[in-house]
Amino acid sequence: MSASAYTTRSTHACFGGVQGFYSHASGSTGTAMNFAVYQPPQALAGARVPALYYLAGLTCTEETFVIKAGAQRLAAELGLMLVTCDTSPRGLNLPGEAESWDFGLAAGFYLDATVAPWAPHYRMGSYVNAELPALIEAHFPALPGRRGLFGHSMGGHGALVSALRHPGVWQSLSALAPISHPSAVPWGQKAFRGYLGDDPAAWRAYDACELLKAGARFPGPVLVDQGLGDQFLAQLQPDALEAAARDADQPLTLRRHAGYDHGYYFIQTFVHDHLAHHARLLKD
Amino acid sequence: MSASAYTTRSTHACFGGVQGFYSHASGSTGTAMNFAVYQPPQALAGARVPALYYLAGLTCTEETFVIKAGAQRLAAELGLMLVTCDTSPRGLNLPGEAESWDFGLAAGFYLDATVAPWAPHYRMGSYVNAELPALIEAHFPALPGRRGLFGHSMGGHGALVSALRHPGVWQSLSALAPISHPSAVPWGQKAFRGYLGDDPAAWRAYDACELLKAGARFPGPVLVDQGLGDQFLAQLQPDALEAAARDADQPLTLRRHAGYDHGYYFIQTFVHDHLAHHARLLKD
Repeated sequence: MSASAYTTRSTHACFGGVQGFYSHASGSTGTAMNFAVYQPPQALAGARVPALYYLAGLTCTEETFVIKAGAQRLAAELGLMLVTCDTSPRGLNLPGEAESWDFGLAAGFYLDATVAPWAPHYRMGSYVNAELPALIEAHFPALPGRRGLFGHSMGGHGALVSALRHPGVWQSLSALAPISHPSAVPWGQKAFRGYLGDDPAAWRAYDACELLKAGARFPGPVLVDQGLGDQFLAQLQPDALEAAARDADQPLTLRRHAGYDHGYYFIQTFVHDHLAHHARLLKD
Repeated sequence: MSASAYTTRSTHACFGGVQGFYSHASGSTGTAMNFAVYQPPQALAGARVPALYYLAGLTCTEETFVIKAGAQRLAAELGLMLVTCDTSPRGLNLPGEAESWDFGLAAGFYLDATVAPWAPHYRMGSYVNAELPALIEAHFPALPGRRGLFGHSMGGHGALVSALRHPGVWQSLSALAPISHPSAVPWGQKAFRGYLGDDPAAWRAYDACELLKAGARFPGPVLVDQGLGDQFLAQLQPDALEAAARDADQPLTLRRHAGYDHGYYFIQTFVHDHLAHHARLLKD
């Protein structure tokens, strides 16, 4: 992991801490990448604190969770840093990049692409699992080795897959309405075909259910929340995730919530439970 | 006050309650008006609950507070309904309506305009102080006579002025970074000249400081929060409000917060204090 410099776009006092928006030149993507950090009051007072990274869903940016989730209040109480990043490289003008909302821009799927023209730039897997934590720990008062990861929808997929592939990087894991079995559903198939090529064998390395079937494990309990009024349930496949975890003896608590949909009103309702889950594991 | 029918645009489960977005044909403005209501779980269980109305600032809509303030969590605990409305009529295509961000669209200043072409439609004063509460109490489980009012910036002005002009309509009052003395600052002078004409005597009826000087009182304690890092302090004039309240023996607590700016990170930090202030007074 290597660290690079960053520039500050804006900072805002928030619950006694600071919500900041930043950008840096990413070696992973070869582009400028935006990210955001909430530093709780404990960090401003000089402590190094655990950091919880959030991966957003399709169409989102590093700003979406920061604005809509209402997570800073409890992060301030718990002394958790919150880190968010963008959902793809931007500004490349690759052919087809902007043609659909579920592929290309804002749809990087947190993997390292292997086929042209995406392979040199769409490397959100390396970005999230190596470059970004190194950057954060070099420049912000985050405790190395106390990293939590969670996300929503495409970002829930990103969190599950990242932590199953790199269990040494992440010490706690959860997800909200994750795309759990992408190689079996249209969103995932479109993304994997585009970024990884036509051979479904290559897709298994970025499919949480397939990773569990192939022996990957996360060394800790995993929390997943899913709304039963979610308009995208067929793309998310929570039952497949639950079955794969059970078959793999992977500790996983999947909570189903009647009436809740896919949006940030669902996220803000349950985000405190996720922060508490991570704080409990990261502050042990 | 008369009630009219409304249509539901969307609803979302949120903290055991429902966040809904609606529209209706407004008699005050002669246009369709959007509004939003958060019904806490207590309301869904059959209780009538106090309702807290929020007025947003320049450039905002009924959605801004709902997305950015993080208020539903405590509203659910306290059993408060949250009501938000738009910041001006829309769709009229009046000349000059869309030329600037601080006049016309999204800048109705919560008054009843008296000069052409605004007078028949820019009647947000009547809308907020009569039509909207009547609509809410006719169609949602809000307790009549248990109405709180607060707002931010232009909406803080709207809250202060509305409650000072109509103290019988509102039972609790607070504001975040309000435009406190609009007739003395560029934002207010531009709006008042446009909506009320060139004679500053007419402006006093919509200026919180001038209303206090002229004898208006709110029958209860008023809470105001102001960030000292606010980039618009010169437009807001908190010192003038504090002095006017002191001279008028109007109970007012104005809290100044070092480092906080004008945005929703400031609002989300202090919004719980405002909900608690209103709940205490509305649930007496």
